[in-house]
Amino acid sequence: MSPAPIALVTRLDAAADEAWLATLSKALAGENVVPLRAIEPELRAAVEIAIVADPDPADLAGLMGLRWVHSLWAGVERLVAELGADAPPIVRLVDPELARTMAEAALAWTYYLQRDMPAYAAQQRRGVWRPLDYRPPFHVTVALLGLGALGRAAAARLGDAGFVVRGWSRSPKALAGVETFSGEAGLDECLAGADIVICLVPLTPDTRGLMNAERFSSMKPGAALVNFARGPIVVVDDLLAALDQGRLSHAVLDVFDVEPLPASSPLWSHDRVTVLPHVSGPTDRDSAAAIVAANVRAYRQTGAVPAVVDRVRGY
Amino acid sequence: MSPAPIALVTRLDAAADEAWLATLSKALAGENVVPLRAIEPELRAAVEIAIVADPDPADLAGLMGLRWVHSLWAGVERLVAELGADAPPIVRLVDPELARTMAEAALAWTYYLQRDMPAYAAQQRRGVWRPLDYRPPFHVTVALLGLGALGRAAAARLGDAGFVVRGWSRSPKALAGVETFSGEAGLDECLAGADIVICLVPLTPDTRGLMNAERFSSMKPGAALVNFARGPIVVVDDLLAALDQGRLSHAVLDVFDVEPLPASSPLWSHDRVTVLPHVSGPTDRDSAAAIVAANVRAYRQTGAVPAVVDRVRGY
Repeated sequence: MSPAPIALVTRLDAAADEAWLATLSKALAGENVVPLRAIEPELRAAVEIAIVADPDPADLAGLMGLRWVHSLWAGVERLVAELGADAPPIVRLVDPELARTMAEAALAWTYYLQRDMPAYAAQQRRGVWRPLDYRPPFHVTVALLGLGALGRAAAARLGDAGFVVRGWSRSPKALAGVETFSGEAGLDECLAGADIVICLVPLTPDTRGLMNAERFSSMKPGAALVNFARGPIVVVDDLLAALDQGRLSHAVLDVFDVEPLPASSPLWSHDRVTVLPHVSGPTDRDSAAAIVAANVRAYRQTGAVPAVVDRVRGY
Repeated sequence: MSPAPIALVTRLDAAADEAWLATLSKALAGENVVPLRAIEPELRAAVEIAIVADPDPADLAGLMGLRWVHSLWAGVERLVAELGADAPPIVRLVDPELARTMAEAALAWTYYLQRDMPAYAAQQRRGVWRPLDYRPPFHVTVALLGLGALGRAAAARLGDAGFVVRGWSRSPKALAGVETFSGEAGLDECLAGADIVICLVPLTPDTRGLMNAERFSSMKPGAALVNFARGPIVVVDDLLAALDQGRLSHAVLDVFDVEPLPASSPLWSHDRVTVLPHVSGPTDRDSAAAIVAANVRAYRQTGAVPAVVDRVRGY
């Protein structure tokens, strides 16, 4: 007898849904991956596994036999909040390809700032030819907030490129070639010496609003902020004030409180803000599907649910 | 008896001249580095060495005892042309720090293109939120035109970052991990498979106008061009036509036929052109002065002029 279907539960657009279905079906040959809407109501109780991307919580609540949920995303804070304490275990995507793309983004937008690309773009618009003083990477300190898989990969890339790298995490961590800081007190110390600060922390109750007016006033005058983590980590009004006061020189924002960023947001037209449409760590479907497939196969063989998200920590 | 003064001969602005004088004097302790204008006419015949940056040829012609000239720049094509065949030997700056900064620029602006920074900037100006398809570096081919010290350093950086690297040079060269091409026929073959083409060739009679309409039509549709070498290598009118036809997607130009780029140039306002004010390979004064000092010391000890520019090849 073939196993019960695996439900694909998303609120993505039809094209993305279709692309995921094709890639997952190929990676999970022998399994039956089916969009939830295509599973007859009387068969839904047999579903043990759901693969999800921004699922409607009501859809998951209708799967009475659900044993576990595999997120196609690394960030699961909304899923954790929406599903509540009684929901089945959540497995998040831990994709080494995501660490690679995110580390690449950290280096790419660090160069963007170190090489003064926003300033040269502004000069070009005004027809101004003016070489700015070059800062070699060994005179530029980059602080990474968050030293999980993404932060560690970014630290390695930035260090290889010659930047001075420091890192902050909730609990103390040691990392070769990186000056590390931890805890509440360590954060201000870490920020104080950095020219570029890159947020890579997960969104949890502790990190919500982490980068606020007080933090910005701890930062080096003229430093730049990059947010590749989650929108609510940065208090946007405080950021705008820090930019307008000239306290911070520039912000590169890839994530926002509401996405897509609403047309009414002042961030769109701020000349010290670079708005990106959530592209720093793009999910590679092939790579993600291979990881989901490996977790599903391990479950089929052992009956044990893969390592899951800690609902208290939030990641 | 102390040696005759070394003449510093430039047409730079006063601040740059002063900064060079201070740095060179420090690096050349024991020597007497003096701006040409401060050397009494009757003492000029004793000058054996001139250190130059964009010198007035007439100034050099007035130094009758000149044995050799050290350029503070890597590019000496104008110097070679202006001084003529009877001038003393020219030593150009071969600075490993220049290879480092230029390789860094090659990687930084390759990321700029691979990560679609110009497209996202255009979208931001129009308030458009649209993630574009991500191209991982192992699906992006970068062609380096020129495999001298700069091209080789750039190839190493781009290869480390995961890009597919190919290179073209006048005469055949082998380089680990790089598909190499040479000669006239090899150039079109090299261009045909590249997503990003970076010019790092010296300006010589052979490379003047190298990138013209015919070359652009050999390039992959939608490819991008980066010129970090010298302005006249690219035929600007042909480039504008290729961009306007959508044949090329973007050009990053750091060098121009006339610098500063005149206000009347259509490049300033072209939305597919990034104009940079000659900043890809900034000269590091400390590093350059140390190299000049080593060459001067070797000359004082051996009496032999250091390796010089080949006036026929032009570099």
